[in-house]
Amino acid sequence: MSAVAEAAAHESRLRVRYAETDQMGVVYHANYLVWMEIGRVEFVRSRGLDYGAIERTEGLCLAVVEAHCRYVAPARYDQEIAVRTRIANHSARTVEFAYEILAAETGRLLADGFTRHVWLDSNWRPTRLPEQYRLALHGAAQ
Amino acid sequence: MSAVAEAAAHESRLRVRYAETDQMGVVYHANYLVWMEIGRVEFVRSRGLDYGAIERTEGLCLAVVEAHCRYVAPARYDQEIAVRTRIANHSARTVEFAYEILAAETGRLLADGFTRHVWLDSNWRPTRLPEQYRLALHGAAQ
Amino acid sequence: MSAVAEAAAHESRLRVRYAETDQMGVVYHANYLVWMEIGRVEFVRSRGLDYGAIERTEGLCLAVVEAHCRYVAPARYDQEIAVRTRIANHSARTVEFAYEILAAETGRLLADGFTRHVWLDSNWRPTRLPEQYRLALHGAAQ
Amino acid sequence: MSAVAEAAAHESRLRVRYAETDQMGVVYHANYLVWMEIGRVEFVRSRGLDYGAIERTEGLCLAVVEAHCRYVAPARYDQEIAVRTRIANHSARTVEFAYEILAAETGRLLADGFTRHVWLDSNWRPTRLPEQYRLALHGAAQ
Repeated sequence: MSAVAEAAAHESRLRVRYAETDQMGVVYHANYLVWMEIGRVEFVRSRGLDYGAIERTEGLCLAVVEAHCRYVAPARYDQEIAVRTRIANHSARTVEFAYEILAAETGRLLADGFTRHVWLDSNWRPTRLPEQYRLALHGAAQ
Repeated sequence: MSAVAEAAAHESRLRVRYAETDQMGVVYHANYLVWMEIGRVEFVRSRGLDYGAIERTEGLCLAVVEAHCRYVAPARYDQEIAVRTRIANHSARTVEFAYEILAAETGRLLADGFTRHVWLDSNWRPTRLPEQYRLALHGAAQ
Repeated sequence: MSAVAEAAAHESRLRVRYAETDQMGVVYHANYLVWMEIGRVEFVRSRGLDYGAIERTEGLCLAVVEAHCRYVAPARYDQEIAVRTRIANHSARTVEFAYEILAAETGRLLADGFTRHVWLDSNWRPTRLPEQYRLALHGAAQ
Repeated sequence: MSAVAEAAAHESRLRVRYAETDQMGVVYHANYLVWMEIGRVEFVRSRGLDYGAIERTEGLCLAVVEAHCRYVAPARYDQEIAVRTRIANHSARTVEFAYEILAAETGRLLADGFTRHVWLDSNWRPTRLPEQYRLALHGAAQ
């Protein structure tokens, strides 16, 4: 991870929903993957791209092939959450996003993790992301 | 509701998931609509139909146009739940399902409600359910 | 509903999550109840109250006893949604919220509905909302 | 992993809910963590223990500290799913569950993964699982 790429992290904000808590009184752990998805969609948007439009117009989708989350401290109802998203690795066919999930007020780390993805065409075959999108997303068409 | 239709209710069983609870220590209220969906899919299956296959092969979908739930007593984690589903009303283009959600062990009523639906074609226009399905689902092609 | 109360509606904004869609390509219908919850929490906050703090410090919770939703037009992935929330009815022990769910960009109505609630104490018995909260929430301690 | 432990895997069955699909037409990836939770609760039950009762009567909870999932092939609406759960590692204070998620009909692997957990007391401090539960869960109080 270069310093340049590090600088390129994008921060999204969200507020914990009641629906996201469980009877332990904290956020149910699977919801962190939903927050990571919000982080990466916002990351993509911050690069000037619209993931929904890519899916609709190009017939491409960014399928998840691996997800990992490490839970450090519980998130609670109504807490404001910051999701810091960056691209940790990428190729023409794959992207790996890394995430830090923080308490927005204190900056305390609540969780971190990554998701690995492949671009699929409309027949669900691995494909290359077209160059104009790669340029926008990664700053270079590798 | 005739006695015949009453007799035609179908009962599905499910067990409350941890993910379905909230920090009040009971099932989050929106999940009852998910259980109603399970009830109606199982109802349709009990009539010898496969909703998924109808969606895939006929391009039809049963869109929800109204949902109502009355919450009587809370459902709790790991509790076994019975969902009793029946068709309360139907036409060639619409179906209304009625539900009772019960504690399976005691038979106590936890919630009841209904959902109203229209059949949509692949262009999302209201359409008539083909007669062979209506016969299977309703016992008569009204 | 008086004009005054009508004027007192609160509008919340949210963006449709991928997790909220289903294979029909639109938002799964149970998620509208989650959005209504976001609307009423924000409504309460707009009255200077913090629902989470009321739950923690007073041991009160606002249990849902009835929910209703009418689906007018589908909401789609990544769409910005406006939830307009107002109090339709209330007593010392009960509150009814009414909601309009709109496409934020066009103002098109996507759904409307209501939820009815009772205030419960820490033993899950119906109770009266203390006067200072009623004043803040309703503008008068009826 | 010894052959004995391997033999001790528990298999749970579930059917994919409409609510679990997303607009890609397959199961939304975060739901696999929910299925893993179903697998481990059923695993614990198959050992003669009741996780809900342990939480209520002992004030213990099994907090997730890490989750990992590798997605091999998509799961689809209404498909019957088998979740094979085993304990991959454990100590007095920790448990690691490993999972295989399969298409029940064909035995095809759809996903695998693990979750790591710590036992917490009612003050959310790491604690030792009492010996009678460890004996039941692991076959030996290590």
